[in-house]
Amino acid sequence: MIKVAVDAFGGDYAPEQIVEGALQAAEFDGIGVILTGNEARLRSLINGKPGSDRIEIVHAPEVIQMDEAAEAVRTKTESSLVKAAQLVKEGHAGALVSAGSTGATMAASVLTIRRIKGVERPAITSLMPTRTGVALIVDVGANVDCKPSQLVQFAQMGSIYAENVLRVHRPRVGLLNIGHEPSKGNSVVREVYPLLREQDASLNFIGNIEGRDISRGDCDVVVCDGFVGNVVLKFAEGLADALFGMMKEEFTSSIPATLGALLLKPGLRRIKKKVDYTEYGGAPLLGVNGMVIIAHGGSNAKAICNAIRVAKQGAQQNIVQGIAERMAT
Amino acid sequence: MIKVAVDAFGGDYAPEQIVEGALQAAEFDGIGVILTGNEARLRSLINGKPGSDRIEIVHAPEVIQMDEAAEAVRTKTESSLVKAAQLVKEGHAGALVSAGSTGATMAASVLTIRRIKGVERPAITSLMPTRTGVALIVDVGANVDCKPSQLVQFAQMGSIYAENVLRVHRPRVGLLNIGHEPSKGNSVVREVYPLLREQDASLNFIGNIEGRDISRGDCDVVVCDGFVGNVVLKFAEGLADALFGMMKEEFTSSIPATLGALLLKPGLRRIKKKVDYTEYGGAPLLGVNGMVIIAHGGSNAKAICNAIRVAKQGAQQNIVQGIAERMAT
Repeated sequence: MIKVAVDAFGGDYAPEQIVEGALQAAEFDGIGVILTGNEARLRSLINGKPGSDRIEIVHAPEVIQMDEAAEAVRTKTESSLVKAAQLVKEGHAGALVSAGSTGATMAASVLTIRRIKGVERPAITSLMPTRTGVALIVDVGANVDCKPSQLVQFAQMGSIYAENVLRVHRPRVGLLNIGHEPSKGNSVVREVYPLLREQDASLNFIGNIEGRDISRGDCDVVVCDGFVGNVVLKFAEGLADALFGMMKEEFTSSIPATLGALLLKPGLRRIKKKVDYTEYGGAPLLGVNGMVIIAHGGSNAKAICNAIRVAKQGAQQNIVQGIAERMAT
Repeated sequence: MIKVAVDAFGGDYAPEQIVEGALQAAEFDGIGVILTGNEARLRSLINGKPGSDRIEIVHAPEVIQMDEAAEAVRTKTESSLVKAAQLVKEGHAGALVSAGSTGATMAASVLTIRRIKGVERPAITSLMPTRTGVALIVDVGANVDCKPSQLVQFAQMGSIYAENVLRVHRPRVGLLNIGHEPSKGNSVVREVYPLLREQDASLNFIGNIEGRDISRGDCDVVVCDGFVGNVVLKFAEGLADALFGMMKEEFTSSIPATLGALLLKPGLRRIKKKVDYTEYGGAPLLGVNGMVIIAHGGSNAKAICNAIRVAKQGAQQNIVQGIAERMAT
């Protein structure tokens, strides 16, 4: 059984939805959950619920708010987030899940769980839906000014994760650029291209990809610096919102339209499901000495449950060891 | 009357759709069109068509292909593109429209028409549909490694264009970043923020914007380096394609769905129209000594007609002089 430490007070809908998601996850085979946070509150939330016997609680009196950044980790050492990270550090848990502040989760992980030896900078990832599945974007905000060697590591770490957790055979790794030719791009990516080409058979580098190739599903791992990745990620959210918003307006604008929308409901629901982050449960922070899943701030119970399952799988597949071995070569 | 030089052999559907668009545009008051390209071919395409008396033809035997880059401009001096640029340079035309290779159009403009004095680097722009209208993105690919002072100029030039051609009063200018706080971002944008803050009342700088703010319509001019802008632009095309593609699949997956789609057709058509680049006709190359509109490579007649109208408006509003005066202060 793998125990997953869950920061019960991180996230827009904490602690209720986090606890609910933990209860759902605890019903799966091989998963144990340790919730961190105000013990009395957590007890009252799980009491009598099915699965509550597979949930442990570790008291943490402090809360790091969503708008707090890395610094909060140093001052709030009794927070639910830091406590959860400590459980991983000390070996009581095999993985950490938090839907709290991304910056704080990254900081707590780096300061407490520590970097894997040889990793220059850990990377925050995100799973983006594509026409054919999902693509893992590395990095989406941890590192805004990257050195070429860091981007090479993002490619290696992302590939290991995609292969072992996303179950993609020989994941196609693409370097996000403004053209397919090796000569394209800014000074950093132009340096990265030949470095990725030089990688041995362990990396399936398919070359440069353009923005439009992502949604088409042309690759499994998209490598970029955290500035570009963050802009693209948030832009995708905004554009999808805008398109669905426009549709909603049109679909309620007349009686025939409303009737049409009703007939299309199953199909529209399938599309929404495809682009719904709650299905994916969160994305890993790669490069730290423990399996850390950063869930979306707006995670509901289903998203948290999926995040815990993904965290368990990552721990089971020994992603950390895989990365450590890769860095040592 | 303003004469617009149109590169009749640039674009995926050249010369037929370009000529057709020119004929449509020539019917508008105050627009004259000079088509450049193989004279015999062009004559046969316009002969007898309404509006053909308001179209001039300047012979250009060479063609720069869509996949040719800046270098082609130096070797193919008799190309339809270079000839069109020369017409602007020599004052025979007030503006240039090309749907050909963006890199070549940029090069032809810079080499022939030349930069406006004081402009460090011309910028390629793009109009992106938003929930409330359009946003002008500056730059989308001309400059991949930008200095802070260049981004400040992008803001100034974009603002002048939005005010005078897009008719936006005091255009809201946003700096594309990964957070709203001034301290956020990579080293370049962190330097740009205070420089934009220092700008006088001529620039309505609203601060940092995130990727998701673009589609929401939070600003009229989005400032970014050409690497980020190009990735976002192409990503938007890819994501919209993927979403519309998924819809098409769902909408033909069953009889009720097909019926529903039929009922929703007017609404879906309105959405498509909103996100359809042919409506906007192309976006300006800012910073050169003449009004240059770069139309989408896939432009059809309608897109070309709109591009010519936009070019005429830019020339009429004297965008070039506006930018030159701003640079001189």
